[in-house]
Amino acid sequence: MDAHEKGFFTEENSVEVVTGRNKNAKDERLKQIMEVVTRKLHEAVKEIEPNQDEWMQAILFMTRTGQMCNEWRQEFILLSDVLGVSMLVDAINNRKPSGASESTVLGPFHVEGAPELSMGANICLDAKGEDMVIGGRILDTAGQPIGDAVIDVWQANDEGFYDVQQQGIQPDFNLRGVFRTGADGRYWFRAVKPKYYPIPDDGPVGKLLGALGRHPYRPAHLHYIIKAHGFETLTTHIFDPDDPYIQSDAVFGVKESLLAQFQHVEDPVRANELGFSGKFWQIEHDFVLARPEE
Amino acid sequence: MDAHEKGFFTEENSVEVVTGRNKNAKDERLKQIMEVVTRKLHEAVKEIEPNQDEWMQAILFMTRTGQMCNEWRQEFILLSDVLGVSMLVDAINNRKPSGASESTVLGPFHVEGAPELSMGANICLDAKGEDMVIGGRILDTAGQPIGDAVIDVWQANDEGFYDVQQQGIQPDFNLRGVFRTGADGRYWFRAVKPKYYPIPDDGPVGKLLGALGRHPYRPAHLHYIIKAHGFETLTTHIFDPDDPYIQSDAVFGVKESLLAQFQHVEDPVRANELGFSGKFWQIEHDFVLARPEE
Ligand SMILES: [Fe+2]
Ligand SMILES: [Fe+2]
Repeated sequence: MDAHEKGFFTEENSVEVVTGRNKNAKDERLKQIMEVVTRKLHEAVKEIEPNQDEWMQAILFMTRTGQMCNEWRQEFILLSDVLGVSMLVDAINNRKPSGASESTVLGPFHVEGAPELSMGANICLDAKGEDMVIGGRILDTAGQPIGDAVIDVWQANDEGFYDVQQQGIQPDFNLRGVFRTGADGRYWFRAVKPKYYPIPDDGPVGKLLGALGRHPYRPAHLHYIIKAHGFETLTTHIFDPDDPYIQSDAVFGVKESLLAQFQHVEDPVRANELGFSGKFWQIEHDFVLARPEE
Repeated sequence: MDAHEKGFFTEENSVEVVTGRNKNAKDERLKQIMEVVTRKLHEAVKEIEPNQDEWMQAILFMTRTGQMCNEWRQEFILLSDVLGVSMLVDAINNRKPSGASESTVLGPFHVEGAPELSMGANICLDAKGEDMVIGGRILDTAGQPIGDAVIDVWQANDEGFYDVQQQGIQPDFNLRGVFRTGADGRYWFRAVKPKYYPIPDDGPVGKLLGALGRHPYRPAHLHYIIKAHGFETLTTHIFDPDDPYIQSDAVFGVKESLLAQFQHVEDPVRANELGFSGKFWQIEHDFVLARPEE
């Protein structure tokens, strides 16, 4: 018998030997996943030809990434984000029918249980930044309004931090709110113009970005989760198209259709009605939900 | 401009968009490595099409693997081992000229500073297991003996544990020794017949092996690092070809040329000379070192 017949590992047959061991896997899906993972990993090693020191550096990078994780920090999600994996998984799981709003990454700062507010409420509780009013409609793909749609919105403050990143500094639930549409599908609320902000870059992923000559910034955005009975849940953002980082989002979340129009409005009467003291920003943006069968 | 011109991420152009960000990488090699890693990772995701829950399970598996690591335990090396990556990196970095002894994985149990012993010493300090005598020559590829070659050998005891896994139970430096050849290139020492043993399987990697229907065992072996001035260092094993796990080493370390002949000897006179009390095992195994220029 030669090495091949005995099933010994060689550089040539490495994938077959390793995946051949999984014959008795308890789960077909896991077996399939590990077949692909092993094959792609071996292809990568064969193309890179790492020396022993490079291999050890990779081992230590993964180790540090795992050890950076705690209750509030998920460094492997950050790694998935900056390598475009999170967006790819999002894309694969959210192939929308034509006309429906596109999704993007959830991000790490969503909080369950934000307060349900009446339409028009101001979610900005720290009085910082430039006033903004946002409105629009929740529609189906035929353009019909969706009533009883629930809009969960959150954003960073004028300094680029979410409330959960500054507990005790920002008021609880600052810049978060849940709104429910009426029969006309309309929503509106007041907020503050968002700013770009860096993803947490004091860990191994931040060091990797630095070594790759990449910045850690995400262009200014608001987050949304929009749910309605009979429709697919939409997890998305709207972005400020004039943000300096709009073409280089550190986590690749920007899509053409997620660019909102930020209008700068000078209208003292309207400002007064809205409780604003001067110029303000105005966004009109509709969201279109898909039905599961579409 | 369409999404492609603006450089926004899509399912189709995901690799180009992500790797395109590394234009200003500070290190060409890192840039090249990350190009391959990103491309293979995206290929894997596109082929697997993980749902959000599977993606999260992968994130949590990597996190647990990192968090299992400490001063004595390197779970990511274990992961690399059981996926055949360690052996692949070893193979790529040790393409030997014809006639030279083949390498295999170092493993996690090597200890610097084992005592240098005189030829014939018994490295077994706990008097457990079946007696064994091992000898042979260190040669160059022309068959000439190499003098002043340093042989660092270590093995598990009769219960399948290395001394460092049982501190306070096994004597320090049990089953470890360093030997130096004379002009004839010969070495010999006494030891104990090695047994198969499991890699540490109480962590995430062990759970993965279980789910894949794989056992955690390595067939019985002795470890060697052999150094000589003017020659490439050889890191290798010799294996017991009759071990029940010889065709299914959990870390894929077995090669045809690493199978030694374990002879069971009944020779009371010779046993008496060796200080053995009955039947013993005998191995005669030469190692051939390559010169760097070969
Ligand atoms: Fe965000
Ligand atoms: Fe070992």
